[in-house]
Amino acid sequence: MKRLQVSLGERSYPIYVGSGLLDDASLLNAHVQGKECLVVTNETVAPLYLERLVAGLNVPKTDTLVLPDGERFKHLDTLKTIYDALLAKRHSRGTTLIALGGGVVGDMTGFAAATYQRGVNFIQVPTTLLAQVDSSVGGKTGVNHPLGKNMIGAFYQPGAVIADIDTLRTLPPREFRAGIAEVVKYGLICDAPFYRWLEERSAEINARDEAVLTEIVHRCCQAKADVVARDEREADIRAILNLGHTFGHAIEAVESYQGLLHGEAVAVGMLMAADLSWRLGWIERKLVDDLRGLLETLGLPVAAPAVMTPQSFLSAMALDKKVAAGLVRLVLLEALGSAIVTGDYAADKLQETLEIFCQN
Amino acid sequence: MKRLQVSLGERSYPIYVGSGLLDDASLLNAHVQGKECLVVTNETVAPLYLERLVAGLNVPKTDTLVLPDGERFKHLDTLKTIYDALLAKRHSRGTTLIALGGGVVGDMTGFAAATYQRGVNFIQVPTTLLAQVDSSVGGKTGVNHPLGKNMIGAFYQPGAVIADIDTLRTLPPREFRAGIAEVVKYGLICDAPFYRWLEERSAEINARDEAVLTEIVHRCCQAKADVVARDEREADIRAILNLGHTFGHAIEAVESYQGLLHGEAVAVGMLMAADLSWRLGWIERKLVDDLRGLLETLGLPVAAPAVMTPQSFLSAMALDKKVAAGLVRLVLLEALGSAIVTGDYAADKLQETLEIFCQN
Repeated sequence: MKRLQVSLGERSYPIYVGSGLLDDASLLNAHVQGKECLVVTNETVAPLYLERLVAGLNVPKTDTLVLPDGERFKHLDTLKTIYDALLAKRHSRGTTLIALGGGVVGDMTGFAAATYQRGVNFIQVPTTLLAQVDSSVGGKTGVNHPLGKNMIGAFYQPGAVIADIDTLRTLPPREFRAGIAEVVKYGLICDAPFYRWLEERSAEINARDEAVLTEIVHRCCQAKADVVARDEREADIRAILNLGHTFGHAIEAVESYQGLLHGEAVAVGMLMAADLSWRLGWIERKLVDDLRGLLETLGLPVAAPAVMTPQSFLSAMALDKKVAAGLVRLVLLEALGSAIVTGDYAADKLQETLEIFCQN
Repeated sequence: MKRLQVSLGERSYPIYVGSGLLDDASLLNAHVQGKECLVVTNETVAPLYLERLVAGLNVPKTDTLVLPDGERFKHLDTLKTIYDALLAKRHSRGTTLIALGGGVVGDMTGFAAATYQRGVNFIQVPTTLLAQVDSSVGGKTGVNHPLGKNMIGAFYQPGAVIADIDTLRTLPPREFRAGIAEVVKYGLICDAPFYRWLEERSAEINARDEAVLTEIVHRCCQAKADVVARDEREADIRAILNLGHTFGHAIEAVESYQGLLHGEAVAVGMLMAADLSWRLGWIERKLVDDLRGLLETLGLPVAAPAVMTPQSFLSAMALDKKVAAGLVRLVLLEALGSAIVTGDYAADKLQETLEIFCQN
């Protein structure tokens, strides 16, 4: 097992990465404060892991809540069912919420923890690759609104993150690949050697090799922890973690979250960001082609869905959180391993990128 | 105009108290960050002050939202209308929310600010006595749940509080008196000389004398700012601000927020807390009688509504946030001007107090 620390003063917390952690209940019990907890999961994860996790808990009052599965349920009405469960079972301010599942379960449970009685303890137990390498670390919590993704939420750090690599074995292939998109992201924005390492290990990645996955989750969590420690509330540098996300969120929104998965949309978005960076003369064409090749090898999409048009991109992007003072700010690449956030680019180049990616 | 500071490091902010502040738009403009704002108010306050406030705003994009008036609308569905307005008008993370109204408007607008795009700037412009002396200061925000008051919320500090004493002139008598209950609270928990000063000035208070009101709002804000600076997230000392609130919340909940106003319920609750403190031998009987006399002079209720029973109190209190590890913790008095939070008291004395106050 590897142990990392997210350094945020009194809000610091450990991340544990390894195999068999779900059966090592001492880890979980050490981070439950008080005598009450509510385990929140979804209908897909519950039959796989809920019983095992609850069996190890040494907490006098342990309740469970099973949410419907999917990004389309990540809204205020589902959040309300968490509050309802906590209040129906009379959980106090001393309770601990445990999020067992992917990014949707983690984001909603984290937001419920941030806002139940103005804030209670919570623990992330991510069971998807996307959640293990990205969403469970850093304290971004929230739900979607019909007019925009993650528009309602809070920065609220967990007390611990426990990432059991074994849970990735049960992940459907498409969800696994969607998580890999975020892994590639870390290489692009801040770690060129890691990016090249990933290129060399695409076969092991696709075969879900345990050692390679452990290394991947550990390295991505370390990268994310470093960025978050420098800029918890995304005043500046943290925004580079959104590489591909402005384009990706536009795709997800136009498809009403029923089309590409988040990670898949981010894969397309990252390639669009790389393409635009090349058009602006900031990076070589070869990097764009390399990235396209890597994404294809990893089974990820490299073109916008047929429903997308340049206009639908622009309209959806105008509502994205990265809009500052009316200008669409984008995360772009200056080089492999180096990203910047900027609204200072030629609009006609953006138009070219949108048109190229909407031709498919 | 008097100016105070709430000292919370990087979350510090000023409180302005005085006459004519609504017409001094420079104050408000100085605390709006960026080029967008949404003024949130309610249907009672809007016709009185909304136009005046908006007229002074020097913000390129100024939107307004008028909520229904009343504690019974302080729930997730009303909160949603604030998110809807922000998103429909495409407000960015750089927007400022301005809460113009009483405690309900302030609590909901503050919670919307805490959670819109994970946190935006907001300014409190309280127009009721309750909001000016209590709810607008200290960063408690949130909404009610059918199973409990303020069960969903966040600690989120405003960028400034602007309390215009003139707005108290238009307050309905019952709401004014409800605010006075919280004023009396500060004397009881931490300022014996202020309590005696209030006893001597009950006539001026009832006549809404401007100088007396300015002094009252200033002194209460100072007391609250001091407590909040010592314990922002209510780990310990801040809980004394809840004197009378556990009993009061029980009354409000059992009456489904349709009976006594919050401040009225707190008045009854404070007298119950004083009565219990006397039964425990901690204070003199005379202080209980003095308090009853003062509350009556100020037009406040001193007995539980007929619908309340000892059992309905106990049942509702078990869900209150001040329950720690199954024990109902109460704020009680050790002396005039000195309160403690404790779960260490004789249960039969609590029963006596409940029975006495439910006989009326």
